[in-house]
Amino acid sequence: MADFKLDSRLSADTIAIGDSGLCRLLLMDDSRFPWLIMVPRRFDITEVHELTPLDQTVLTFEIAQVSEILKDITGCKKINIGALGNMVPQLHIHIIGRNEGDIAWPGPVWGAGKSVPYDEKTMRTFIERFSSALQQAS
Amino acid sequence: MADFKLDSRLSADTIAIGDSGLCRLLLMDDSRFPWLIMVPRRFDITEVHELTPLDQTVLTFEIAQVSEILKDITGCKKINIGALGNMVPQLHIHIIGRNEGDIAWPGPVWGAGKSVPYDEKTMRTFIERFSSALQQAS
Repeated sequence: MADFKLDSRLSADTIAIGDSGLCRLLLMDDSRFPWLIMVPRRFDITEVHELTPLDQTVLTFEIAQVSEILKDITGCKKINIGALGNMVPQLHIHIIGRNEGDIAWPGPVWGAGKSVPYDEKTMRTFIERFSSALQQAS
Repeated sequence: MADFKLDSRLSADTIAIGDSGLCRLLLMDDSRFPWLIMVPRRFDITEVHELTPLDQTVLTFEIAQVSEILKDITGCKKINIGALGNMVPQLHIHIIGRNEGDIAWPGPVWGAGKSVPYDEKTMRTFIERFSSALQQAS
């Protein structure tokens, strides 16, 4: 089986946080929303139902864990979860913390204006908080 | 524990197909896209991570099954899965069959123009095909 390789467009739009049991964890470089992307480290998978049943179960566990931590550390009102892949076919799951009054509320974040990249310090602080909470939960 | 009751806005926008082990299955009354909605029949749940681990596992299984059937019977190019809930907090999962050239492609379907209700015959035919495929798969 060929190796997992992160799609170049996902790589260009994000900052790598690290790996969970199944997924590469990425922070979308858009400071308007706390927005993570989870990419199962499997070769040539575009749909959730193409994963093995075990991988599907692990993915669900990891999505729930990441969602809960994101809600916890940001205090956001709602988590949005999405697996779209119309532009980037490599299976990837968006986990986004949403708040009333954010720039896309109550619509979806996809296609809502232009992203605003993080400044280095804010980005580092966010990744440290998230990673530390994930480590404590695991 | 109080009983599950379908949110009135979900009810108004959809046609009921039936119940899976965990979910109420609904067809979005928008003939522009093959668009299903799955609502876990649990009381007062707004986020996937609030479900019990067993319900999360069953939900994943059912999402994968419904996605695969939808892709199969429609021949669509891509499945979009989304759990947003910014407007309707009751946890519900969108499963949408997407095609290059559909009216929202490659963007998300949410917020893309006005829905076009089904005519009775097309709607009945779709529900029969889907239900029959689901029964065979279960």
